[in-house]
This record gives sequence, C-alpha cells and structure tokens, in this order.
Amino acid sequence: MIKIAIVGGTGYTGVELLRILALHPEVIIHTVTSRADVGKRVDDMYPNLRGFVDAEFTEPSVESLAECDIVFFATPNGTAMRMAQALLERGLKIIDLAADFRLTDPAVWEHWYGEPHVCPDLLHEAVYGLPEVNRERIRNARLLANPGCYPTAVQLGLLPLVEQRLVHLDTLIADAKSGVSGAGRKAEIPMLMSETGESFKAYGVKGHRHLPEIRQGLEQACGEPIGLTFVPHLVPMIRGIHATLYAQLVTSAALDLQNLYETRYRDEPFVDVLPAGSHPDTRNVRGSNRCQIAVHRPQGGDTVVILSVIDNLVKGAAGQAVQNMNLLFGLEETTGLRAIGVYP
Amino acid sequence: MIKIAIVGGTGYTGVELLRILALHPEVIIHTVTSRADVGKRVDDMYPNLRGFVDAEFTEPSVESLAECDIVFFATPNGTAMRMAQALLERGLKIIDLAADFRLTDPAVWEHWYGEPHVCPDLLHEAVYGLPEVNRERIRNARLLANPGCYPTAVQLGLLPLVEQRLVHLDTLIADAKSGVSGAGRKAEIPMLMSETGESFKAYGVKGHRHLPEIRQGLEQACGEPIGLTFVPHLVPMIRGIHATLYAQLVTSAALDLQNLYETRYRDEPFVDVLPAGSHPDTRNVRGSNRCQIAVHRPQGGDTVVILSVIDNLVKGAAGQAVQNMNLLFGLEETTGLRAIGVYP
Amino acid sequence: MIKIAIVGGTGYTGVELLRILALHPEVIIHTVTSRADVGKRVDDMYPNLRGFVDAEFTEPSVESLAECDIVFFATPNGTAMRMAQALLERGLKIIDLAADFRLTDPAVWEHWYGEPHVCPDLLHEAVYGLPEVNRERIRNARLLANPGCYPTAVQLGLLPLVEQRLVHLDTLIADAKSGVSGAGRKAEIPMLMSETGESFKAYGVKGHRHLPEIRQGLEQACGEPIGLTFVPHLVPMIRGIHATLYAQLVTSAALDLQNLYETRYRDEPFVDVLPAGSHPDTRNVRGSNRCQIAVHRPQGGDTVVILSVIDNLVKGAAGQAVQNMNLLFGLEETTGLRAIGVYP
Amino acid sequence: MIKIAIVGGTGYTGVELLRILALHPEVIIHTVTSRADVGKRVDDMYPNLRGFVDAEFTEPSVESLAECDIVFFATPNGTAMRMAQALLERGLKIIDLAADFRLTDPAVWEHWYGEPHVCPDLLHEAVYGLPEVNRERIRNARLLANPGCYPTAVQLGLLPLVEQRLVHLDTLIADAKSGVSGAGRKAEIPMLMSETGESFKAYGVKGHRHLPEIRQGLEQACGEPIGLTFVPHLVPMIRGIHATLYAQLVTSAALDLQNLYETRYRDEPFVDVLPAGSHPDTRNVRGSNRCQIAVHRPQGGDTVVILSVIDNLVKGAAGQAVQNMNLLFGLEETTGLRAIGVYP
Repeated sequence: MIKIAIVGGTGYTGVELLRILALHPEVIIHTVTSRADVGKRVDDMYPNLRGFVDAEFTEPSVESLAECDIVFFATPNGTAMRMAQALLERGLKIIDLAADFRLTDPAVWEHWYGEPHVCPDLLHEAVYGLPEVNRERIRNARLLANPGCYPTAVQLGLLPLVEQRLVHLDTLIADAKSGVSGAGRKAEIPMLMSETGESFKAYGVKGHRHLPEIRQGLEQACGEPIGLTFVPHLVPMIRGIHATLYAQLVTSAALDLQNLYETRYRDEPFVDVLPAGSHPDTRNVRGSNRCQIAVHRPQGGDTVVILSVIDNLVKGAAGQAVQNMNLLFGLEETTGLRAIGVYP
Repeated sequence: MIKIAIVGGTGYTGVELLRILALHPEVIIHTVTSRADVGKRVDDMYPNLRGFVDAEFTEPSVESLAECDIVFFATPNGTAMRMAQALLERGLKIIDLAADFRLTDPAVWEHWYGEPHVCPDLLHEAVYGLPEVNRERIRNARLLANPGCYPTAVQLGLLPLVEQRLVHLDTLIADAKSGVSGAGRKAEIPMLMSETGESFKAYGVKGHRHLPEIRQGLEQACGEPIGLTFVPHLVPMIRGIHATLYAQLVTSAALDLQNLYETRYRDEPFVDVLPAGSHPDTRNVRGSNRCQIAVHRPQGGDTVVILSVIDNLVKGAAGQAVQNMNLLFGLEETTGLRAIGVYP
Repeated sequence: MIKIAIVGGTGYTGVELLRILALHPEVIIHTVTSRADVGKRVDDMYPNLRGFVDAEFTEPSVESLAECDIVFFATPNGTAMRMAQALLERGLKIIDLAADFRLTDPAVWEHWYGEPHVCPDLLHEAVYGLPEVNRERIRNARLLANPGCYPTAVQLGLLPLVEQRLVHLDTLIADAKSGVSGAGRKAEIPMLMSETGESFKAYGVKGHRHLPEIRQGLEQACGEPIGLTFVPHLVPMIRGIHATLYAQLVTSAALDLQNLYETRYRDEPFVDVLPAGSHPDTRNVRGSNRCQIAVHRPQGGDTVVILSVIDNLVKGAAGQAVQNMNLLFGLEETTGLRAIGVYP
Repeated sequence: MIKIAIVGGTGYTGVELLRILALHPEVIIHTVTSRADVGKRVDDMYPNLRGFVDAEFTEPSVESLAECDIVFFATPNGTAMRMAQALLERGLKIIDLAADFRLTDPAVWEHWYGEPHVCPDLLHEAVYGLPEVNRERIRNARLLANPGCYPTAVQLGLLPLVEQRLVHLDTLIADAKSGVSGAGRKAEIPMLMSETGESFKAYGVKGHRHLPEIRQGLEQACGEPIGLTFVPHLVPMIRGIHATLYAQLVTSAALDLQNLYETRYRDEPFVDVLPAGSHPDTRNVRGSNRCQIAVHRPQGGDTVVILSVIDNLVKGAAGQAVQNMNLLFGLEETTGLRAIGVYP
C-alpha cells in the first residue's frame, strides 16, 4: 500500500483527491495537512467523507510528510516549490497540483507568477504530468507538475492538429468556459452565488496564467512557436470545462479529421473521441476522469472547430494526479478512476 | 454473476441504475428495454456510459426478460403490475422502482393512481423495500416495491420518533423539497429550465401520491393511525431531497433524541446521523446511497425538527434498488454502492 | 424632489435601492456612502447603473447626510442606531433596512444581537414599516424600522389567521426558504456558488434573529403569546423567498379561508391573493414589490397551509423601504414601484 | 394611444412583450392571441402579469387584428409570412420577432428554413430592425424584421471593425453563449432543467440559422463577402447572451479601438461601450434593453477580442421590438424601455 500525504487538504482539489483516494484500493491516506485547521477532523469539514476518511488535519512539516511515499500538493501557487527539494532528498515522490513546476523557463514563470522561482533547477527535472503526451517520462519521474485544468482540455483538443502541423500555428484560438469550482475555495465576493449565478462573463482576456502553459505544451508538440489567443469564461455551474477551439487548416483538401483524432487517442483510457457530429456536454464527464472530444469542420470550410470537455476537478486536477500516481508506482493506470459521469 | 434486466432504461432512474450496475462486480447487464428506442445503442443516448455499457435498447417481452435473474422496472406507474405475474412464474425476481406495489390496500392504490390495480393479490406478497425496516423480509422476497424518493427521506427521518411514540401522531408535518430530476425525463413545459431555474415553488399541496405511502409506512411502524401533512416543493437543482420534519413531543421532559437516532441507525450502512446541531446539505449525498439526518429541538421546546437528506436518484431510487438486490441475492449489502458524495 | 441618502450603498439592499430610486420620479439620489470605496464611481462597481446613477461613494457623516431629506441605512446591524439620534435632531427622516429598530424590547434586542442597544428610547418611537399593518403610523413617523425579508413573507402569510385567532397560536410553523442574496454581499466561503449551488440546506434551526421579530409582529396582531417554530433554508437561486406556513385550526367547521385572505388584502397594492388551489412561484415576483399568497387546507383537515412568496430584495427590503418612503412623504404608495415580475 | 396586438402571446418573447408593453405609457394592449388557449385569461397563465394585463387569449384572425395599429408576431417561423400581406393591406404595421423577413434572398431563406418563402416580394420591402444600423429606414417602414438574439449581440460587437474594414473579413469567429430561454417555451427533453442545468455544451456547430442573418448584416455593412464561423453554446442560466468575437487586424499598427467603439455608439441609447479592460456580465443587462460591449487586444497582438452582452429576451427580442415600435410611431426611442439591469 502506498502511503500518501495531501498538503492543503481543504481546497476543492484537496477534497476531490480525498474523494478519489479514499476508495483507491492501493493507497492509505496517511496525512492531510491544513495549517488553519490543525486538529479538526477532515470529515467534520467535509461530511461527504464521513465513514471514508478517518483523519485529522495536521501541520505540514517535512518530518511528518517524510513518513509517506508520495506528497500531493493541493496548495496555492508558491508552496510546493518551497518544500520540494527537502522531500525529494528524503526519497519521496511529489505531485504538485499547483503551477510551481509547470513552466520550464524560470523567467516565464516569474513573469506570470510575480516572484522569482525558488528552485529553478527542479524546473528541468519536473515532468509535465499529461499522460497522453509524457506517459513514459511520468513513470520514471520523482517530481510531477500536474497540468492546469484549462491546459488539459485545450491541449488534448489541439494536440492532434498541432502535432501534425495541419493548421496555422500562429492564429489558434481557445475559447474556454469553466465552472466556478475552478476558482477554488476562497472567500471572495466575485465567486459568491449572487455574483456568478445566472450570469456569464469572460475574464482575464488581457492574459491568463494558463496561456504560457498551453503555449509551452503545444510548442513542444510541434517544435515551432505557437500564437494562441486564450479567453477563459466563467459558467454558472460548479464543475466542468468546455473548450471551443478554432484553427485554420493549412490546406483546403479533404482530410479525415475524425480518423486523425480517433487514431491519436485510440489507446488512451481517459480520452474519448465522440462520433462525428457530436456536441459533448460537460455533465457527461462530471465526476469522471474522462475527456470527451468532438471534431467539426463547419460547412467544409478551412476552420476546424474542436469541442473538448473535462471535469475541471478530476481530469483537470485530482483525477489526473491520481492517474499520474498510478503511473509513478507501476499500477494499472485506471486504478481508482473507473467512475462514470454523474448524469443527470 | 447475476443477469439483470432494466425495463424502461431511458428515464433518469433507468440511467442511474445503469451507472451503478455497470460498475457492480457481481452483475451482468443483460437486457435494457425501451420501446421507443429499439436498436439504438444505450451509450448513444447516454454518452457518460460509453465504454461501460455495451448494449442496445430492446423491446420488452416476457420471453427475453426470462433469460435474466432479476428485472428492474424503471417505468411509469402501471407497467410493472402488468408483467409481474408472468415473470414471477418463470422464477425471476422483480424490483419495481415505480409505485405499483407500494400500497398494500388495492382501494387506496386505485384512489391515488386512478385505475384499478391489475394484480391485487400480489400487493400482499410484495415487500416494501426499505431495508432499514424490512431487511429480513427483503432477503426472502420475490417481488420488491422500491420506496418512493420522498417516502424514503421522510420515513427514515420520522421512524425513530414514531416507533417509540414519542410524538403526537396526528399532527406530523413533512415539508419536503426535491431537485427537478424527481419529475423524470419527460417533455413537459413546467420542467424546462426556464420555468424551474432560479425559482422555488410548492406543488401538490392538495394531495400527493407519496402521502399514502408515507402514512402506511409510519402506521406500520407504530400500529396506530397517522395524521400527516405533506407538502412537496421543487428546488432549482437537479438532484437531492431535503425533508424538514416537524413533530410535537408528547412530553416536555428531557429526552436524548440524538442518542435515540444514533442507536436506531447504528448498524445501518446507509443512514448517517450527523452530530448534534448539524444542518445536512443535499450536496454531501449527491451520487451516493446515503441518508444524512440531523435532530433538532429548537429552544428546547416541544417541537422536534428533523432534517433528512438523500439523493433522490440513489437512496431515493436506483441505489436503494441495488441495495435491495444485494439483499435478495445474499451479497454484501454495500456491494457496488460505496460511492462518496460528489462535493462540490 | 426628495433628496435621499443611502448609507452603505455597496450591499445588495443598497444597490437594489439605487436600482429602484434611480427611476423614481420624485427623488434625487444625493448621497451614497461607502467607507471602503470613497471616491469610486457607483457605476464602476455596478455597471447595471451606468447612465442612471451619476454619483461617487462618499464618507458617511452626519454633516453631509444633513443636506438630505431622508436617509436609508442599508448597513450591517448596529450602524443606524449609532447615527439615528443626530440625524433626527437635524430634521431628517430615517428608514433603517437593518434590524436596529425592529424589536421594541431592548432586552430582547440585546439577547439576539449580542450587544446592548445604543438608543433604547428610540425603539419605542420607531415604527415597524409593514404598511399592511401600520400604514397610518408610518405616514407620521420620523424613524422607520424596515421589516426583515423572512418576517415580511411570514407575517403577511399568517396575519389573517392570527388576527382572527382562527388557529392555535402556540404551534405555528414557518418553513421558509430564501435565495442566497439574503445573506448579503460578504466574502464568506459558505456563500460561494460552489458551496450553495446545486444544493439545499436548512440553517439556524437553533434560533434565527428573525424569529423574535416575527413573533413580536404576530403577538401585536392578536394580543396573545405566540409559539412559533421558524426554520430558514437556503435555496440555490439568487432572489426570492417562499414561506410555507402551517397552522392548526381551532375549529373543524367549514371556513371560507380564501375569502378571509381576499378580504384582508383587498385594498393592498402589493399583496396579491392568488386563486384557490394556486402554488405561487418566486419567479413571478422577481424584481417586483409584490407578495403573492395562496391558501390551502389539504384534504379538508385541520391543518392550514399558506404559501407566501416575495422577492427578498424588493418587498423584503428595498422595495418595501421605498413603499414606506412614499407613505412618509405623502406620495402615491406605488410610485416608482410598478415593476412587473421578471419571468422567465 | 397605439392599439397593439400580439400574435402568439404564450411564448417567452410574447410574455416579455407583455411585460414591457403593459407599462408602456403610449400603448393599449388590445389583442393577445393563442390558438391553444382561447378564452383563458393571460394572467392565469402568467401570474406575474396579474393586475397589469386584463385580457384573454383570442383566436388570431385578420379581422380582429385589423382593429389594431400594429401587430407583433411572437410566433414560430413561418407564421407571420402567411398573414403579413393581408394585414399590410389593411394599413397595419407589422413587427415580426421570428425569422420570416430577416433574410433578403428567398433562396437563402428556403435553404435555412426548409420551405419556400410565401411572400418573397415582401422580403425586399421588409426593413431589418436593428436601429443602430437602419434607424431612418425603420421610421418609415411598414414591415419590420426584428433581428435574432445572437445576430443582435454579434453584429453590434463586430460592426465598428467591419464597417471600417480594420479586420480580415474572411476569418471572423463568433463564439456565442446563450441562456436557455432562447430556445423558447416548448416541451422538449433537451431543455429540461435536468438536461441543461449544471452543464455546458455547444450546439449547431454544423450550421445555425443565425449564421446567414449575421453574415448578411455584416456584408451590408462593408459591401464585401464575409467568412464567419459561428458556434452557439447553451449556458445553464435563463436569460442572457454573451458573444466572444475574434477578428484578425489587417494592420499591426497601433489603433485606438476603444475610441472607435465609443465614437460609433456615442449617440446610441442602448449600446454601452464599457471602459477599456472591462469584462461585461450578462447579469448587468438582465431585464434591460442594453447591449454592453468591451474591446480587447490581448498582449497587443493582431487578434481583437470583442465581448458583447445582451438580454436575449429584451435587446435580443421584445425590447428591441418595442424600440422599433417607438421609432415606427415617432415616439421617443427609449419610451417604456428605461429599465435597469436586475442585479444581483
């Protein structure tokens, strides 16, 4: 049994990790930390976990974490990078669900996250935990950067086109929509139900931190610079991301794009290319680790439209982290992740 | 492996049965019927089931159903009673998720359901499938009447008080609130999102079909007539029932009601009495088979207030049906039902 | 033209006052205060008001407010009572939308609000601003206590029964449900959309501050002690209150309750008794100052069920305050309040 | 006073017309038709109108309509074109809120609406009722085609760029999101709250009927062919459209796009260009006739991003129809339309 620790167990990604890991047959939840709630029972805060998680929140410390095999950081940005080196030295594996190790260039990281990176050397060792791209590297990693929610939906949607350079790489557009849980469990007026319910808005049009992450991933996939316009939106629902992706084909010739996608993802347990003409609903992946994708070429024109949906807390966060953990420890990749989307 | 059939697999209780049974380790989904969709793949209609359910909808017939061990009726009222006798004769077990076998008195059934009952003899054989009351009888039954969603939440909330006759039995009040999936998957204007979203209303105040069902259950629990006012409401959410129950204590003496409830449900795998002072959220049981209950006596007065929540599609329908199936076939009662509430 | 000031213009009742008063033909919005936002344009914070409100938030001070004819306090509890005396001395009228002047007994106020009242003398002068009860006293008042949202819905629903003593006064039950805007515009985790969306819960069962307010109003209506169980609930919607009220008739005789209600409210511009058998929807009063009420006596029994709906921010707060202002200044009572419910 | 008739008064655009016109100071609601509800009181079906609309639904006939000055068709597509000629001959004015007169080319109409147009001659007389483009022609029209909801939001967002040919006209992208009331008040399973709530999806990617309408409007604005990819999405809310519009600038030079938009719409009473850097919320225009627009050029690149929001039932349907009526009859354009967005 793998002994796991969750640092920052009170946010939505933390509690989602608990929900998944509590039923995972190969792990023991050893430590759940939360500075603000030390001594409080986890299931007092999250009554859905009653009977499944028998733990109290503890203070995070390298010493106590060192008793585990792996640490999940479900913390704000800037936390994992301050503890990573010490934990790695003690032989632990790390999966950071925040952004500390997602960008390989420390200068880019500093630009978007507003402070110098604390351990730039580790940026190069860290493996970007998108199994559909980096599966083999993940198996052998010590330090995994779990992808962001938008980057997961957008990259899985665009990769087949970009890898094959079938589209102009300088005018990609990702119009992405997320449920409000993506903003985390923070006391902020703009995320009140009175503010976000029954309304729809874009945000961060000027520049969102997931833009460089997506761009980096796509550039690695094709070896060329990517020009991407990324506009995130807030949907009045709790879970789910829907990315609507636009790209201009480099040729007007007939292309079997449906086949391209089906072939690319044929062996992927968590990417499901829907039949031609489909329109994926976020509800169909709610609570599941699946990405569902549909491929469109409206009126046979030069613009390809890809629709890609995930549950932002599962394939966009905690589920993907467990998928990565399974790879790290040589388990069947789908262990603990065979949930079916909760519809309706 | 138990071969199961679902008659009426296109409604919300049907698809919820599929979601649960597809991952149940002891069953094979043999037959899923829908007259209107014969030949269509189940996962074409419900893409959340892609990769989990490999079946097409078929015509319901006694012959084809007879190949199974058990038939779940997830049909409108009045369907199961027309097929039950023939299926029982062929040795099958039946769980009816509709109301055909819930009331023991054919006259009462006819009054509330608007037609004579087709097989009144079976009404007496049928066992009311509330395991917290009838566990032993369920194990030995052939024909189970799966309780309604409101009756499950209300009875579990009131039973400890009524069984002990601690409250006046003639002025019970059940103010119940349900998500819209309780109305089923029917094309009706009042259930459009534009009608039910961002609004709240009562309905059926004059008299709802779940009233006689609840009354019957409570009368059996105490052996006396019950006077109950039952007012259902529609909540702008999809899943979940919250019953707020009011009863007048027969004594003003101090009573340890918290202990009464904890003792009554101590061994129940799916009833969870929350700590004193709690307010259960429907979200904490979303997608799970659990009932969470809190006990209050405001200002120490004579009025007891019980709060009882379930997921109407799980403990209020498909989950309870699977719990009953487990009992019928001698399986561990929680098999296939160890899901944790999907929060947030 | 009446010069008005709003103290605390950034909460939901404040912005709703602005929405109503900006189109009121007899007022000038002279001053809008917010300590935290001094110098900021009101319509920068609330873009729905662009072109309608040309003001900046200012510091609240007796001096600047003294230039106005009336001050609306849309502030947290405990603010108005600290400024009321000084403003009254300068000849202003005051409508407090918070709770400072709602309870007549300073000891009761202190018990429920946790601090001694600062100006208990004014408690007796203050008029409770429910026009359906106190219209004439309101016309001549200087200081108005605008009723709470729940108390408005509950009292309007129960008054005809209580005034006529047709029901047992010691076992009244008010099961009330509110949209989340009732909690105000405060940065608190429990009011995040991820917490309150798609879920339903009761709260404050132990005791809610609106309980003594309702009890006081009903006791004044009948001159006898009232026993009331009041359970508020949170509905996953933004606006609207639905009160489901239960009372036991003192007689089993036939009573024309429909006529009782229609007669009681015949001349009320903002109370609408629906036809017998109706179930009011909160959506039908959304954005309007109306209370819609339906009267039921299920199965002709002894329990009366009253359904009463309002928009908590309008008839439950800002609209009622404007109705009161109209009375205070001798205007037509409906001036500026003839909005129709926004359906769908 | 203008005597108005509404044909098809039971859909969402019909009831929204009633909500607006009931308070319009210059009109009398003379006739409201609904074949299915003849003899029923309008406010029985729509209790929000109680006290404001004193009418019964009648059978639509040219004779009865001929007593009015103007007929609003709030009907399904294909109705108005069958009655228009006869009504025009009797001197009435017509505003069709459906699509019968929106496209000038009968062949295009037939392609998208699936039947030959009944009165192609009138297609050329009909004026497209977008006041921001056709104000003078509207004043003198007999027959107005009220724009679609998406086309209103998209055209108002793109017109300044397209009129000035500042962007490539062949790769425009309109990623549009609508609340569910846009689908109308029809008993259809996909629009149930259980289907559309808490979920997000695209639809009609292959081709939506609003595509040719938008294209026609933009082509008339610049005199050149337009290449547009239009993807509509369904948002789990009732009212509101948010269009996110992408265009490639023809020059990389500095451009004062903010000023371009502010100048273009300076005198428009219902188009509000927000300050630079804004992100409009649909809630801020809820219930109002306003379009709010924000202009972005992320990272100073060649892609312009325009955000445009309306209430689909007001500026996208009934409100714009009343605005057009005001123009037709020489009234102040804003008469009856000075509502403020209902926030929260």
